[in-house]
Amino acid sequence: MESTRSILAQRLAEAGQSHLVQFWDELTPEQQAEMTSDLEAMDFQEINKFFRSAMEVSCSSKQEKMDARMEPVPREVLGSVTRDRDCLKDWEEKGLWCISQSRVAVLLLAGGQGTRLGVSYPKGMYDVGLPSHKTLFQIQAERILRLQQLSEQRHGAKCCIPWYIMTSGRTMGSTKKFFLRHSYFGLCKDNVIFFQQGMLPAMDYNGKIILESKNKLAMAPDGNGGLYRALGTQGIVEDMDRRGVKFIHVYCVDNILVKVADPAFVGFCVQKGGDCGAKVVEKTNPTEAVGVVCKVDGRYQVVEYSEITLATAEKRSADGRLMFNAGNVANHFFTLAFLRDIVQTFEPQLQHHVAQKKIPYVDTQGRLIKPDKPNGIKMEKFVFDIFQFAKAFVVYEVLREDEFSALKNADSQDGKDTPTTVKHALMSLHHRWVLNAAGHFIDENGTRVPAIPRDGPAGSGTADVNQNLKDGTDLPIKCEISPLVSYGGEGLEELVSGREFRPTLVIDESGAHELVKNGL
Amino acid sequence: MESTRSILAQRLAEAGQSHLVQFWDELTPEQQAEMTSDLEAMDFQEINKFFRSAMEVSCSSKQEKMDARMEPVPREVLGSVTRDRDCLKDWEEKGLWCISQSRVAVLLLAGGQGTRLGVSYPKGMYDVGLPSHKTLFQIQAERILRLQQLSEQRHGAKCCIPWYIMTSGRTMGSTKKFFLRHSYFGLCKDNVIFFQQGMLPAMDYNGKIILESKNKLAMAPDGNGGLYRALGTQGIVEDMDRRGVKFIHVYCVDNILVKVADPAFVGFCVQKGGDCGAKVVEKTNPTEAVGVVCKVDGRYQVVEYSEITLATAEKRSADGRLMFNAGNVANHFFTLAFLRDIVQTFEPQLQHHVAQKKIPYVDTQGRLIKPDKPNGIKMEKFVFDIFQFAKAFVVYEVLREDEFSALKNADSQDGKDTPTTVKHALMSLHHRWVLNAAGHFIDENGTRVPAIPRDGPAGSGTADVNQNLKDGTDLPIKCEISPLVSYGGEGLEELVSGREFRPTLVIDESGAHELVKNGL
Repeated sequence: MESTRSILAQRLAEAGQSHLVQFWDELTPEQQAEMTSDLEAMDFQEINKFFRSAMEVSCSSKQEKMDARMEPVPREVLGSVTRDRDCLKDWEEKGLWCISQSRVAVLLLAGGQGTRLGVSYPKGMYDVGLPSHKTLFQIQAERILRLQQLSEQRHGAKCCIPWYIMTSGRTMGSTKKFFLRHSYFGLCKDNVIFFQQGMLPAMDYNGKIILESKNKLAMAPDGNGGLYRALGTQGIVEDMDRRGVKFIHVYCVDNILVKVADPAFVGFCVQKGGDCGAKVVEKTNPTEAVGVVCKVDGRYQVVEYSEITLATAEKRSADGRLMFNAGNVANHFFTLAFLRDIVQTFEPQLQHHVAQKKIPYVDTQGRLIKPDKPNGIKMEKFVFDIFQFAKAFVVYEVLREDEFSALKNADSQDGKDTPTTVKHALMSLHHRWVLNAAGHFIDENGTRVPAIPRDGPAGSGTADVNQNLKDGTDLPIKCEISPLVSYGGEGLEELVSGREFRPTLVIDESGAHELVKNGL
Repeated sequence: MESTRSILAQRLAEAGQSHLVQFWDELTPEQQAEMTSDLEAMDFQEINKFFRSAMEVSCSSKQEKMDARMEPVPREVLGSVTRDRDCLKDWEEKGLWCISQSRVAVLLLAGGQGTRLGVSYPKGMYDVGLPSHKTLFQIQAERILRLQQLSEQRHGAKCCIPWYIMTSGRTMGSTKKFFLRHSYFGLCKDNVIFFQQGMLPAMDYNGKIILESKNKLAMAPDGNGGLYRALGTQGIVEDMDRRGVKFIHVYCVDNILVKVADPAFVGFCVQKGGDCGAKVVEKTNPTEAVGVVCKVDGRYQVVEYSEITLATAEKRSADGRLMFNAGNVANHFFTLAFLRDIVQTFEPQLQHHVAQKKIPYVDTQGRLIKPDKPNGIKMEKFVFDIFQFAKAFVVYEVLREDEFSALKNADSQDGKDTPTTVKHALMSLHHRWVLNAAGHFIDENGTRVPAIPRDGPAGSGTADVNQNLKDGTDLPIKCEISPLVSYGGEGLEELVSGREFRPTLVIDESGAHELVKNGL
């Protein structure tokens, strides 16, 4: 024991991190044991190296804005659901075929907790208040089930879309338990594969690891780009290979509209011969807080909104659109071959990004201090850091109202990306599916409700101009369609065509039902 | 007295409205006198005629959707701030010149009360909570003052932009008092001209005028299209003529970003030879609740969002934009000659629109009933009903984030068009003005804030993707610039260039100040 301690002490001294054990003598034996095992698992030399190179990059890149070096995505690598409508069917067919051959996997980034949302459990477990009270995890699971079914129907062969779920040290336990408790939402347990991203300590500006208490280091997940290291350390690439997976759709847990393994996106990327692809939505407001996919010095990357000047954000093309309008929605396509190269060759070359934070710490007297300005950094890699290594990068533009609505914040006035906004986004999409399948909605008086209800999703314009008194509510039509019934709006005609529904309408495996009025 | 009463009784009988005096004997003499004068002022034959033709149009138009008859605005009548940037300077010059010749007037539609906003006074008196606590009326008045100043500076001649303010019976008194109490916000009293739109009774489906109490008819303003009748009955066209006004910019009170007498808009319309023009913003989401300017059967009109099917709302042009994307923002341009034609010739031909409403009424027993479904109609004309009469209709497309943010509702979760959203829209615009004038913002630690602050106006995308913990607020940079200093972003360089500001920044006639932190 003593020799273990002295070896550790020496390692800490060599790494300049001896302060981590400054309270050693005050700890209980249990705390000492726990801390010893925490510290022994850490590679301080590597952490120090990460710190030095991250700070180096951070300091040098602060100096110059990206602006002068940025170029927009060229039209030839772009596929667009609004501008290439003629190709959509082909792409979708291609994607469904790949899925039917069990060549497509989905990979979920779910390492974050719902802190901003005001909950302590993983975001995927959040119930946004749909009529069905399904969680984000369940919605995604059922889309996978439905898509397997669609591919099987089309191509007559059993297929499987494996679901890789990256958690972090903080979310692994509760995530696994949640899936077990819900019997994997009907998926085959073997095809839901959990793995864990790494953690890194927070450091002060001098490279000293921060103690959050006398016996605990301040640790944080290593960013969603921690994916690539985790893919290697946990044998995920091999698992994919063993299963015959060739194409991977990576996405974030918080997007309620996410089209997991989207056949059109996959088919487009495959048809274009892309090894790496990004799904984007059009950025229309210059100051929208979204990163944009573009070329910098000839290589693709996501330029974060905080990295560009207003002048560049406001630049427009001749057609009037924003020049840098490929808004990143964290939906990516990779070939397995590309991922293997990343894991084996390129990941170690990636430097961490520096995020300055206010990190609570214990001072030399052992008092807990909550700083009121940033006092240190967390080190993170981003999932899109690897775009630069693509040999054939492709971009696929979709409609925001159809595919992207992220849950980030708790409900509040003027709230963006809240349970309410994502719930409304999903119900608005399902409302449109019903209308496009020739169904109708009626109000409590039996009158048909217009396609665009009064003060709908983005109320603005002439409503009040006409001085109409409003006696309706400002909510969208309440309508929820189970992903088990429809993945993307298909298959609803026989259920709704020519019929009239009084909201709340719920369509699930047992048919279309009107719910009695409740407080929803 | 008795003969007055019998004449009235006969008129009521002839019009089928005798029920209006069914409680006559229960009224006090004062109530009787007041009701008599109310009733004597009404032209029942005309009202019945309005009812019949409004119901006729309403019933026939219900049958068929507009869809098949709609065409988008052709490119040749469209001017766009994003697609015709080379012309912008010319248009603005032209407009400023017209203003300098005192040929341009502004006309404000302010007949509505702030009912949905939760206040009983006119909307223009609302304080949305800016650092200055200026009301909408004051902001608009100061923009007029600044624009007069700019035109005078450019062209060396004193000029005047008369401000016509249409109120209704409900808002006239309080509006006038408010302006008087604030000394017309620095404008010359003679150049602020109040006039009043008409009122019409609410009717049941059988054409009977509804009694809201035993001695009071249910009355409502006759829609913002009541403008044209009021222009005639109250001699406004003559007043404009007398002042040498040639061009009129008509707008609604609720848009906090409104560019009153916008020189670029006026200049574009004049240069194009338009007699009637509409300012629009691009509609990007098919289900956005905004009317669109388009051609129907070869004539221009605004098709309300409730009038079209989803399929039409979702139609796209080859460039991927929505085909019907000219979102009406109730900002119109008219030549005086056109307005004169309207008042003299066309207005009487316009039928009223029918708005079905739940209208509280007294039953034959004199009990007040609050219906839970629509029981009658209000009759309204719309300001855009006259587009069809234009000989040279033009459309001017502007950026929503620069020019349109309407105040309609009280603050609420997921609230649209609320005091908070309009306040943020104005502060975001002013923030951008400062950046574009080479000013900078710093945070409490002296660090420069990026041009697009974390989770800005339309937070979405990669913020949380990076798993950054958020320790900032989600509010935009707090910045307010007095319209007396800048009408559209001009003239700020000398005040802000190269300087760093800690929000809240207020720029007014005495310079640029940082406000001490408050609860804003």
